[in-house]
Amino acid sequence: MAPYRIAVIPGDGIGIPVTEAALAVAAKALPGKLDTVTFPWSCDYYLQTGRMMPEDGIETLRGFDAIYLGAVGWPQKVPDSVSLHGLLLPIRKAFVQYANIRPHRVLAGVEGPLRKGGFDILCIRENTEGEYSGAGGRVHQGTKDEVAVETAIFTRAGVERILRFGFEQARKRSKRLASVTKSNAQKYSMVFWDEVTKELAAEYPDVAVSHYHIDAIAARMVMAPESLDVVVASNLFGDILTDLGAAIQGGLGFAASANINPDRSAPSMFEPVHGSAPDIAHLGIANPLAAIWSAAMMLEHLGEAEAATRIMTAMEQATARGIGTVPGQNKTDEITQAVIAALD
Amino acid sequence: MAPYRIAVIPGDGIGIPVTEAALAVAAKALPGKLDTVTFPWSCDYYLQTGRMMPEDGIETLRGFDAIYLGAVGWPQKVPDSVSLHGLLLPIRKAFVQYANIRPHRVLAGVEGPLRKGGFDILCIRENTEGEYSGAGGRVHQGTKDEVAVETAIFTRAGVERILRFGFEQARKRSKRLASVTKSNAQKYSMVFWDEVTKELAAEYPDVAVSHYHIDAIAARMVMAPESLDVVVASNLFGDILTDLGAAIQGGLGFAASANINPDRSAPSMFEPVHGSAPDIAHLGIANPLAAIWSAAMMLEHLGEAEAATRIMTAMEQATARGIGTVPGQNKTDEITQAVIAALD
Ligand SMILES: CC(C)[C@H](C(=O)O)[C@@H](O)C(=O)O
Ligand SMILES: CC(C)[C@H](C(=O)O)[C@@H](O)C(=O)O
Repeated sequence: MAPYRIAVIPGDGIGIPVTEAALAVAAKALPGKLDTVTFPWSCDYYLQTGRMMPEDGIETLRGFDAIYLGAVGWPQKVPDSVSLHGLLLPIRKAFVQYANIRPHRVLAGVEGPLRKGGFDILCIRENTEGEYSGAGGRVHQGTKDEVAVETAIFTRAGVERILRFGFEQARKRSKRLASVTKSNAQKYSMVFWDEVTKELAAEYPDVAVSHYHIDAIAARMVMAPESLDVVVASNLFGDILTDLGAAIQGGLGFAASANINPDRSAPSMFEPVHGSAPDIAHLGIANPLAAIWSAAMMLEHLGEAEAATRIMTAMEQATARGIGTVPGQNKTDEITQAVIAALD
Repeated sequence: MAPYRIAVIPGDGIGIPVTEAALAVAAKALPGKLDTVTFPWSCDYYLQTGRMMPEDGIETLRGFDAIYLGAVGWPQKVPDSVSLHGLLLPIRKAFVQYANIRPHRVLAGVEGPLRKGGFDILCIRENTEGEYSGAGGRVHQGTKDEVAVETAIFTRAGVERILRFGFEQARKRSKRLASVTKSNAQKYSMVFWDEVTKELAAEYPDVAVSHYHIDAIAARMVMAPESLDVVVASNLFGDILTDLGAAIQGGLGFAASANINPDRSAPSMFEPVHGSAPDIAHLGIANPLAAIWSAAMMLEHLGEAEAATRIMTAMEQATARGIGTVPGQNKTDEITQAVIAALD
């Protein structure tokens, strides 16, 4: 079989070293089967060209089997509102990667910030619309009368497909689904979301659905994370809950994600949840585990479940020995080599 | 001096017993100086009258020195989107209670969920506009083509006044201010907020300002809460962060709040952060400490700082002895009596 064609966008800051680490591990797990092409799209690229990616960037990526992305953004070089809307967010939308999947559990050997451990949460975040629609504007800009509006747009198609995806995941796991809204305060978008959830619940009588407001479930993730299993949320709420999920896992260095196009009509994209962390970018201490885990999710998506499992096992062999478990304690390279060695 | 005139809205569920507890403690701390009038506005009131409060409810409340509210909402009786937009949210807006102040620290004797304790955060939440503007609509309702939109509206006046309030609070405390946005994804509203923050920062050169995205600061509240002091956020982001703040304090039973009209052109309102908790409403185990703390904030606002401090001291004398520190372990009444006894 021909190798998988992977588009690689390391991006900015620590995106670069963690991508290198993740690809080295993936290559070791699946020798000769990954054909990578690297694109230098980033804030530096913007400073040189005035764009985060070329005009035909999306078309260039379309031909690949998957996209691997490190991290995008370096606010001292390019405003985040420009860099993210120029690269990460358009890819998610153009390729209809509507399901952003983020697993949260504490790896062997890691001591999380919570006194109580023991949870296994799968966050399913809507990834193409809602609060990230990019609709809005500003009037009387720069004056005392300025008004800025930002419109969240939720479509039936968009809400239904992500909830359906959530129900299907719940079926494969504990048959419990938590749906997240803020319908007590946002009476159009979130009441709509609740209604679609209730409608679909009738189609999935075997799945027990709980409705949470975003504030309540955020507190619950800290107080009683073991009570949650599959959590499905809008773009913004999923963003917040998955950083929280990362925190209770022990930190952003552990949180992986997959931006999935479930119909496979375009490539899916895999990236760690963390950002580019410019402040530590040159210290060589970025934790590559989130990136490596994301690469495992990529292999699984490509149909290489066995290789994906081997990566996860190797990762936990390393962390069980205390490697990569405490921020800054091990070099990026040391952690990567430990995972590679455990793959032997 | 004439007694203070307090409008009391116990509301729904545990709102009723915790309000009773808070007023009993306040009366003990300031004997004969609180004149209360109780309004039965609630979901039950809605079932009887078709309204959460009478048409002239706002005008009725306007004459009082302060409003004390327990909790509103009972989704099995009235949809939250109706009950909250019919009572709590209109009061905050009509009386320009634009600063929602929520202190987060761990009371003596309480064991929070985090391994590391030791933080003292003051959240300042915008309380009148933004994501709670109530602007939006639904088209093609109930069909496969439905679209729901929800528009967040941020005005210069609204953003500037809450940030200014935050800067002033920071001056009184550690001179550190964290401003919360999601300007990497929401490029109108949140970029605007960032701009106003930067403009005001020039007026407050003695205050060190940090900018956080909501996802990052949510994680930080769990990973390193001791690094935060005054946090200023939009209506929705403040809502989420203050439930998280409650969680790291040990639970919703400890989180107090004040909805302040800083110009004193209308009454301010005091309420615990927690909801009405219908599931435990009849068990007699609601923790009244958040409500009592909110009453202390009310007395402070009325100019009775000494009585407020005495309540806080009495509360911590009770919790230091383990009373009210573990959810469900003590009856509401037992906790209340312990605080009252400590006031002697
Ligand atoms: C960088 C930012 C735009 C992005 C998001 O909010 O989606 C990130 O926080 C994430 O979670 O992937
Ligand atoms: C009940 C709800 C509308 C309210 C809010 O979101 O403001 C509550 O969560 C709060 O924090 O006071």
